[in-house]
Amino acid sequence: MIPRYSRPDMVAIWSPETKFRIWYEIEAHACDAQAELGVIPQANADAVWKAKDVDFDVARIDEIEAVTKHDVIAFLTHLADIIGNDEARFVHQGMTSSDVLDTCFNVQLARAADILIADVEGLLAALKRRAYEHKDTVRIGRSHGIHAEPTTMGLTFARFYAEMDRNLSRLRDARAEIATGAISGAVGTFANIDPAVEEHVCAKMGLVPEPISTQVIPRDRHAAFFATLGVVASSVENIATEIRHMQRTEVLEAEEFFSKGQKGSSAMPHKRNPVLTENLTGLARLVRGMVIPALENVTLWHERDISHSSVERNIGPDATITLDFALARLTGVIDKLVVYPNNMLANMNKFRGLVMSQRVLLALTQAGVSREDAYSLVQRNAMKVWEQGKDFKEELLADPDVCAALSPEAIEEKFDLGYHTKHVDTIFARVFGED
Amino acid sequence: MIPRYSRPDMVAIWSPETKFRIWYEIEAHACDAQAELGVIPQANADAVWKAKDVDFDVARIDEIEAVTKHDVIAFLTHLADIIGNDEARFVHQGMTSSDVLDTCFNVQLARAADILIADVEGLLAALKRRAYEHKDTVRIGRSHGIHAEPTTMGLTFARFYAEMDRNLSRLRDARAEIATGAISGAVGTFANIDPAVEEHVCAKMGLVPEPISTQVIPRDRHAAFFATLGVVASSVENIATEIRHMQRTEVLEAEEFFSKGQKGSSAMPHKRNPVLTENLTGLARLVRGMVIPALENVTLWHERDISHSSVERNIGPDATITLDFALARLTGVIDKLVVYPNNMLANMNKFRGLVMSQRVLLALTQAGVSREDAYSLVQRNAMKVWEQGKDFKEELLADPDVCAALSPEAIEEKFDLGYHTKHVDTIFARVFGED
Amino acid sequence: MIPRYSRPDMVAIWSPETKFRIWYEIEAHACDAQAELGVIPQANADAVWKAKDVDFDVARIDEIEAVTKHDVIAFLTHLADIIGNDEARFVHQGMTSSDVLDTCFNVQLARAADILIADVEGLLAALKRRAYEHKDTVRIGRSHGIHAEPTTMGLTFARFYAEMDRNLSRLRDARAEIATGAISGAVGTFANIDPAVEEHVCAKMGLVPEPISTQVIPRDRHAAFFATLGVVASSVENIATEIRHMQRTEVLEAEEFFSKGQKGSSAMPHKRNPVLTENLTGLARLVRGMVIPALENVTLWHERDISHSSVERNIGPDATITLDFALARLTGVIDKLVVYPNNMLANMNKFRGLVMSQRVLLALTQAGVSREDAYSLVQRNAMKVWEQGKDFKEELLADPDVCAALSPEAIEEKFDLGYHTKHVDTIFARVFGED
Amino acid sequence: MIPRYSRPDMVAIWSPETKFRIWYEIEAHACDAQAELGVIPQANADAVWKAKDVDFDVARIDEIEAVTKHDVIAFLTHLADIIGNDEARFVHQGMTSSDVLDTCFNVQLARAADILIADVEGLLAALKRRAYEHKDTVRIGRSHGIHAEPTTMGLTFARFYAEMDRNLSRLRDARAEIATGAISGAVGTFANIDPAVEEHVCAKMGLVPEPISTQVIPRDRHAAFFATLGVVASSVENIATEIRHMQRTEVLEAEEFFSKGQKGSSAMPHKRNPVLTENLTGLARLVRGMVIPALENVTLWHERDISHSSVERNIGPDATITLDFALARLTGVIDKLVVYPNNMLANMNKFRGLVMSQRVLLALTQAGVSREDAYSLVQRNAMKVWEQGKDFKEELLADPDVCAALSPEAIEEKFDLGYHTKHVDTIFARVFGED
Repeated sequence: MIPRYSRPDMVAIWSPETKFRIWYEIEAHACDAQAELGVIPQANADAVWKAKDVDFDVARIDEIEAVTKHDVIAFLTHLADIIGNDEARFVHQGMTSSDVLDTCFNVQLARAADILIADVEGLLAALKRRAYEHKDTVRIGRSHGIHAEPTTMGLTFARFYAEMDRNLSRLRDARAEIATGAISGAVGTFANIDPAVEEHVCAKMGLVPEPISTQVIPRDRHAAFFATLGVVASSVENIATEIRHMQRTEVLEAEEFFSKGQKGSSAMPHKRNPVLTENLTGLARLVRGMVIPALENVTLWHERDISHSSVERNIGPDATITLDFALARLTGVIDKLVVYPNNMLANMNKFRGLVMSQRVLLALTQAGVSREDAYSLVQRNAMKVWEQGKDFKEELLADPDVCAALSPEAIEEKFDLGYHTKHVDTIFARVFGED
Repeated sequence: MIPRYSRPDMVAIWSPETKFRIWYEIEAHACDAQAELGVIPQANADAVWKAKDVDFDVARIDEIEAVTKHDVIAFLTHLADIIGNDEARFVHQGMTSSDVLDTCFNVQLARAADILIADVEGLLAALKRRAYEHKDTVRIGRSHGIHAEPTTMGLTFARFYAEMDRNLSRLRDARAEIATGAISGAVGTFANIDPAVEEHVCAKMGLVPEPISTQVIPRDRHAAFFATLGVVASSVENIATEIRHMQRTEVLEAEEFFSKGQKGSSAMPHKRNPVLTENLTGLARLVRGMVIPALENVTLWHERDISHSSVERNIGPDATITLDFALARLTGVIDKLVVYPNNMLANMNKFRGLVMSQRVLLALTQAGVSREDAYSLVQRNAMKVWEQGKDFKEELLADPDVCAALSPEAIEEKFDLGYHTKHVDTIFARVFGED
Repeated sequence: MIPRYSRPDMVAIWSPETKFRIWYEIEAHACDAQAELGVIPQANADAVWKAKDVDFDVARIDEIEAVTKHDVIAFLTHLADIIGNDEARFVHQGMTSSDVLDTCFNVQLARAADILIADVEGLLAALKRRAYEHKDTVRIGRSHGIHAEPTTMGLTFARFYAEMDRNLSRLRDARAEIATGAISGAVGTFANIDPAVEEHVCAKMGLVPEPISTQVIPRDRHAAFFATLGVVASSVENIATEIRHMQRTEVLEAEEFFSKGQKGSSAMPHKRNPVLTENLTGLARLVRGMVIPALENVTLWHERDISHSSVERNIGPDATITLDFALARLTGVIDKLVVYPNNMLANMNKFRGLVMSQRVLLALTQAGVSREDAYSLVQRNAMKVWEQGKDFKEELLADPDVCAALSPEAIEEKFDLGYHTKHVDTIFARVFGED
Repeated sequence: MIPRYSRPDMVAIWSPETKFRIWYEIEAHACDAQAELGVIPQANADAVWKAKDVDFDVARIDEIEAVTKHDVIAFLTHLADIIGNDEARFVHQGMTSSDVLDTCFNVQLARAADILIADVEGLLAALKRRAYEHKDTVRIGRSHGIHAEPTTMGLTFARFYAEMDRNLSRLRDARAEIATGAISGAVGTFANIDPAVEEHVCAKMGLVPEPISTQVIPRDRHAAFFATLGVVASSVENIATEIRHMQRTEVLEAEEFFSKGQKGSSAMPHKRNPVLTENLTGLARLVRGMVIPALENVTLWHERDISHSSVERNIGPDATITLDFALARLTGVIDKLVVYPNNMLANMNKFRGLVMSQRVLLALTQAGVSREDAYSLVQRNAMKVWEQGKDFKEELLADPDVCAALSPEAIEEKFDLGYHTKHVDTIFARVFGED
């Protein structure tokens, strides 16, 4: 994660301040539950809340950690300095560091997921708006990068909407995967702490108790979470690639928004680069690369080894911050994308009418012309378009053999764009609902 | 995929015979729908069903494909040979190859998912049985590969059960992800075919119509599917690794089942290798390696490029066949795993009672001894165990300073294994339900 | 690996016949060395060579393996059937299965590397030929998919040549990485066999003795090997992507060769799909996906675990067969690529002269016009081109303010393509040598 | 990259200060070459060196970039502020941003490689020292985690030495891969700048001119570089895993150094966790995860797209900093590893003499006992060891049938450890050279 590709709300989730705040809340709620169980005095539990509005001193905690070599102990020492050593002496009782660390990590991931979910919702709104705006903007559909049949720009936006809507579901599932907490002790047996503490803390922190943990929360959950981010990132790349293609000089069906004042825009109007979507392509690679380490993290030795930790200290922030940034950037790109309907028409007509050759071929055979003859008829006219730049429809209308099989109206009809757009409403209803 | 790591039911899904059967069904159902719409004659639709019980001649289709260079055309030619050229002439009308290929692929993936789901259910049954069998079999819990606190073998099985139960949910979700079909034409506009055909075919094939497709079904679905297989495979490795650890000579808490007759077993009883779980570790790597290509497949150019195809021709069969084999092999391993409770106790007592030192330390401080003094008391007795092989409890009972703080009963209590297993029932109830 | 993407020579390397032949040679050479050392009788060593021209019966070996559950023992049993039990009784003495398996695997990988090296050499020849053919074929260079400055098609071929030439070096290094053998016994100590045997066998098999092995040859070698294949595959994708871009309808600067008879080519001349290069893109993903499992294979427990084996049984053949096929396919594509120089010129002139605007801007400032004024002068003429389709040079020549700073000749010179191609020979000399 | 896993020298390479310093040097040397060519005045070239000892003001450059949205322009503006606008007006003439950015990136990577190479050299020294120290320290070799035959701890260190020595070669090759520079203009044609400038700058910066570049240096070089880091990281994990295994409670053949004062060490002497090597396992996953994005970066559109940039801004620092930290940490671990030869012997003798059963079996058959009888003899004595804890050698010596075939001396000889270590010197000579 680097500042250039970061947004503050997501970064804040991963700050030391946030982390210590979550640790504090876990410890304080655990004390409440312990007091309720009669394990520790109520007064001591109450005392912990004295720090409720205190800003923890990160630098001070770091200093202590430099000595103790233990982050949780450093924090607890600092907390004791605030609420008093005597009052603090039951804090963390019966817990292991992982109870705090793992539960905190999942709180952070859940909050990160909330932002990502909101990001996708924002992107969906933009995609929907642009889809309706360009519902009937005809452009050529392409398979293999080659002109196939007409479609509309609205359908392009709509399919990205549908894809991102699936990602929304996946993110919600992914959030549920990691929104669990565990306060179950050194090997998960609750030997030193009652399961009721876990239940209380989880309820307060918005988590579900992990049904069975060891020293740690099982990492298949995190693997599923990061794998989902990898899928979402790949969808970001998919959309970004479409736009990069549309913006290339020879296509020019759309451009990323380029503000008037932006340097070089008008002296070199042909040189507006799709740098945002290119950047998104790279960011997708980054997020995708974090999937494998997350999958490798699933295998831990016995009740835990700590190999996952260094991975997560990196990919926890990096994957969520990068994806958040990418989704927001993509939303901006979609929102302001400059679409060129005229260029779309011009491109479609590059080989004047040739994209309709398959319909004509089909019509001829349906009119009783043998497959071979039909093929030959289409071919001789198509080659005039291809080689001499003639207009396909005009050639057909002037070809007596074609006209013997098809009326001028029938020929005209084959070039009707409405033929290709007649089900757009149906598809929109499927994607956006029937309203 | 190689035969050594394959099972026949899963392999059969990916056979040419199955593929052509599915193609046939798609085409036949499409004809029914076309006839219902009045687009083609009912008689022609009916005629297609003449091939219902015919075994397609794969070699013949391959021969035709060698000439036409087109697999779907080769199949249709063969079909026409069977039902008659005239009867066959409306087959595939308005459809593109991808309508058949993509819908077929998803049928295959959905069936593959069904097998994988059944595999996991079988594995869950084995894990549950072994969990209850060893619910109270005490063994040492380990963090960092180092003895921590006691747990039970039943909890180990139970946590693998919980992990695989999550994988069951994930596989069901993954199945839903790819159980869609599309018959929407060259660029997904339904220009040449009514959406009703897609609806009919999908209903018959057990699929949901893809709300919006291009020439292909969007590949984020497949990415999510294969990513899920990667998570499941990683869980397989997680369980396999636990067993490999348990079987290593110095630990020997369990062994993969080794049949009496198996060569070398009794002349070299110490040399029984966990080759099945080692193999599972490798198979997990293979499945995991297929996640990235599946994620890269999401980005296709415009309405489709065919880059995804060669990837899927490989990972479609390979990932599902490998994971099916792995799950079945793991189920066998779990089912017949030879567990050595006595060795578990012996391991736990390797450093006679030392694993309880933390409890003693805590008890001393709770009894009012200062942290420093408590630490010192534990230390001097622990070192006698560590360096001279003494018994920790006996040393404590013989240490007057310890006995001044703790009664003999209190000391004895710290070595009570029941302390560690008291919540096993609670955890089992969470994992397996309250019955 | 599937037949569709396979070539016979590479497939043959991975056949059971080849494998058993290599095993046989290893065993026979080992016997020679053992006899030379006086460890086994010379007659027994000689007897092994009786099988020199015998075709091993793979089906029979499989039958035996089905009983013994051990592939090497099955082979040795079959060998003994051929040369006589008594004669065979010193075969494999002092060796472990891995001595044979690992050494064989490296022989196979080295041979596979030889084919890949020859593939790249063939590709280089094609690239070089096309580079010289199109050394002076001007086309527009593009950054971000947007027109930048002119370059030549020859430079494009030349840079792919340089890239593949680097891959040639990498493949040679990769071959050296895995061309080692080991006959060092159960844990690599040569306890039961003299190092001289390893030396003799390796010399005969074209390998270098592994300086220190355990039961296996260290897998960092294989990781480096497969990582190299991943790099080469990525270069294949790089070239494939360039061609896919060139073939897209709006660009049409080149096309994959499309034989006259190929269906649909002339009735739909606009619909020739770059299916070969799209396919190469997918194959690259496959090979790349095998890098991670190979890297994960490096970590084996102690003197070996067998987790690497299932991975290698797959990626050994799959990665080499796929890459061989891809390189050969790419060579064919390059060799026959249809290049359209006229379209290249037409594309370059799409925005009539605008690609030269930066040169004009620079020339104005060098002529003493202030940056702001120069910018403004270029801008007002550029916008006429962009918005009204005027010709940039003509507008400049007609702009008195421009002409006040630059002579007509100077303006003309800015549009001289020779300016951009003047160093092509220098670059070619760098890439192809000074001849 | 996070501070916790970073070392200052490597971090410094990636600081903005270093980057601007390198940019400056590139620009200054380019001016020299331009002046030498007569393209710009010598005085202007000389003026640039006025900034030679100036510390650039990163914050100021960032401010300018916030306005210009262009990092290189921001730097050049700042440079002009320092040396004077008039003096600076020929700086960067004929160059594009990528000339500076790409050349700088490769300088940084080459310097990073130098540190990594030094890291590996340091690690090699530690491994060699420990190898000789424990050349004759016998321990059991293990395949599949199961006792196989004796080996020595020195051989373990020696094989890690050999593996890391290969990594040293690979890193040197990787350094050579990326130690190139390019100053070739917008599409690599040198249209606006003479190749002599590139040659001069590269020579001064310790680089080789890239034979053919586009706007960028080809990314197959970087892919090969990062793939190599992935191999090295995997070797780090391999060594780390060996140590983690050795430290697990039941094995305890070695421990990471644990300073006397370290908390908990003596009160819980059994609870020293191999946290450093566990951490290395995670760091290896991180570096490995960066290989795939680097491979995906190879494919750029035409003469460049900028998708690689965001990837490299992350993995450039992250991969090198992480690997540097990992290598240094591993060196410390090896250097101070506490080895327990007595525990090695105790482990080897866990099943008293059974590891020799294969040698006895072989000796019996060589003494003329039939395979079946020999097997049966070994078996009945082995089972007494396995089930009743007897000593294998004593049982054999007491078995009249065994003694009928083998003399007591012959039996004793089978238990001679010297048999297994006799070639250690040979292997050491291979690994470390003949001296």
